[in-house]
Amino acid sequence: MSVRRPKDEKLTMAAIAELAGVSKPTVSKVMNGQPGVSAATRKRVERVIAEREYVRNGAARALSAGRVGSVNLVMSEVDSPYFVEIIRGVEETLERAELSMVLTTTHEEERRHRRWMARVIEHGTEGVILVLPDEHAVYVEELHRHGIPFAVVDDRGESLPDVPSVGATNFAGGFAATEYLLSLGHRRIAVIGGQPYKCTTARLAGYRAALQEAGVPVEPLLMQPGSFQAKAGYASANALLDVPEPPTAIFAGNDLQAMGVYRALYERGLRVPDDMSVVGFDDVPLVALLTPALTTVRQPVREMGALATRMLLRIVAGETLESARVELTTSLMVRESCAPPRRS
Amino acid sequence: MSVRRPKDEKLTMAAIAELAGVSKPTVSKVMNGQPGVSAATRKRVERVIAEREYVRNGAARALSAGRVGSVNLVMSEVDSPYFVEIIRGVEETLERAELSMVLTTTHEEERRHRRWMARVIEHGTEGVILVLPDEHAVYVEELHRHGIPFAVVDDRGESLPDVPSVGATNFAGGFAATEYLLSLGHRRIAVIGGQPYKCTTARLAGYRAALQEAGVPVEPLLMQPGSFQAKAGYASANALLDVPEPPTAIFAGNDLQAMGVYRALYERGLRVPDDMSVVGFDDVPLVALLTPALTTVRQPVREMGALATRMLLRIVAGETLESARVELTTSLMVRESCAPPRRS
Repeated sequence: MSVRRPKDEKLTMAAIAELAGVSKPTVSKVMNGQPGVSAATRKRVERVIAEREYVRNGAARALSAGRVGSVNLVMSEVDSPYFVEIIRGVEETLERAELSMVLTTTHEEERRHRRWMARVIEHGTEGVILVLPDEHAVYVEELHRHGIPFAVVDDRGESLPDVPSVGATNFAGGFAATEYLLSLGHRRIAVIGGQPYKCTTARLAGYRAALQEAGVPVEPLLMQPGSFQAKAGYASANALLDVPEPPTAIFAGNDLQAMGVYRALYERGLRVPDDMSVVGFDDVPLVALLTPALTTVRQPVREMGALATRMLLRIVAGETLESARVELTTSLMVRESCAPPRRS
Repeated sequence: MSVRRPKDEKLTMAAIAELAGVSKPTVSKVMNGQPGVSAATRKRVERVIAEREYVRNGAARALSAGRVGSVNLVMSEVDSPYFVEIIRGVEETLERAELSMVLTTTHEEERRHRRWMARVIEHGTEGVILVLPDEHAVYVEELHRHGIPFAVVDDRGESLPDVPSVGATNFAGGFAATEYLLSLGHRRIAVIGGQPYKCTTARLAGYRAALQEAGVPVEPLLMQPGSFQAKAGYASANALLDVPEPPTAIFAGNDLQAMGVYRALYERGLRVPDDMSVVGFDDVPLVALLTPALTTVRQPVREMGALATRMLLRIVAGETLESARVELTTSLMVRESCAPPRRS
């Protein structure tokens, strides 16, 4: 479904709802391929749509002249290589579908949010890809209301259950990183958290589970909170180095934090991995170039952007998704930043 | 000038040309605020435009309803933090002008190039910002032909003289980096080049000029060719370390090359800056986080993106630019990667 004139759109949605004897949100759900509608209702709505020639065949629309031809990618920031990978995944997929990408950053500001939403409603869009912002519930509600199809890149694991979204297996990633450090002989393994999102909770749960499985007690002193910035990694590493019995390995919340950890160690004349093993999370492109190259848990960020885009295009084409939520596999990229602990 | 319906647009351009008794390219030049038109001709064209109420007042247009509302940013790739900074500069400036940004990457492929150009012509645009691709002359000609306003972020220094473009002072940057290494006492200073663009030539000329001013002979063995990738820096550093009398400092072609240099040194057990001083070029965000933090020549990439956008918006608003080409100042960011050479 392509949204060009929001007023016509609303009329049409209302008309379909009336003719099918259902509510507008139900029509929106059917049109967006979302669950929560009975098979019978779905069929009734789809018949009305077909009768009114509200054809949502993607290929057919692609050939129609009045098509908006663009998808909006909305993210809070582009200030880390992480976001760039999402952009690449989205853009490549849209390019193959001969669609262009309108990129907006909101900086989590209400004013900017209002502005892009107004523009999308005024100028139309084929659909929206959200890189999950803090106010996602508001966005989702608004997009639903205007009948605008969307999908979410949700690395935070926070999206609502019936929202089409792509995430990553954070628990498995936290488990794999910790298990690897244990296998090298580490017992005092520190972890740095991130913003209080579900992804952070899941990674920490993976860390705890791996320790417990190995019979290593979880020590609160070795668990540092943090934001996903380098300076948080730097501060946390310094705090961890000042613990009476410091860790021999640090599992950072993400790659930027790991760079902050590198810096704290560098300033104290400690070497990675001889004096301290370090693991990151994300595998943004540059960390393979660090000295030593960072061992990290790869989130397939680009693929997550690409998959969210393919989900959106399927919704636009009127297909029903098998599952609203998909999680892609994380994998440990072993490089140079870990070694067995020094014998003390 | 906003381009919505290319057919109407062409008719209008043709009509103006006929009424003013000039060629269509001349009308295009006047409308795009470009030089190469006599004052008398410019006045005649502008009068015809005013008479036909072809008003190009930016503020007035911004309030008009039929506006396309978006600017196209076209770049070959987004695979380095460098391009991300350009995106940020463009997006911030467009956001303030309440315009959205359509981002396209061409990967320097003819097919993709054709596609975005076709889309711009079909769907319209307020204007285009090109991050100078290899085929820029073709692009420029085509945009001129369709009367589409544009500006160029031209860090390569390669753009045609009458094209609105923003670059950086590459000669001054090359000079400053070399002068700084000389001031630390280095005499065997190597340099790694980049793709054979004018920016590379200018940086190398700055390097040579600084050496000559200090009475230090330029040694061909210490000048390595390279592309702007980390692997080129890695290969060049290895080649330089195998020279009979290796350099004590390496001035890399850009920051990615510098990271490749770090890696080559790391693999040989050499330390930065104790065993080798390293300078980069660009100052992409992450290099301040490296250990040691990279000393580099800053190109104000974000500001270059912002300025090109402001130039485009002025052209769209019907203003005449004082100068088609503007170069922003580079500056040396002194961090931790340089020290006096070891006494041998």
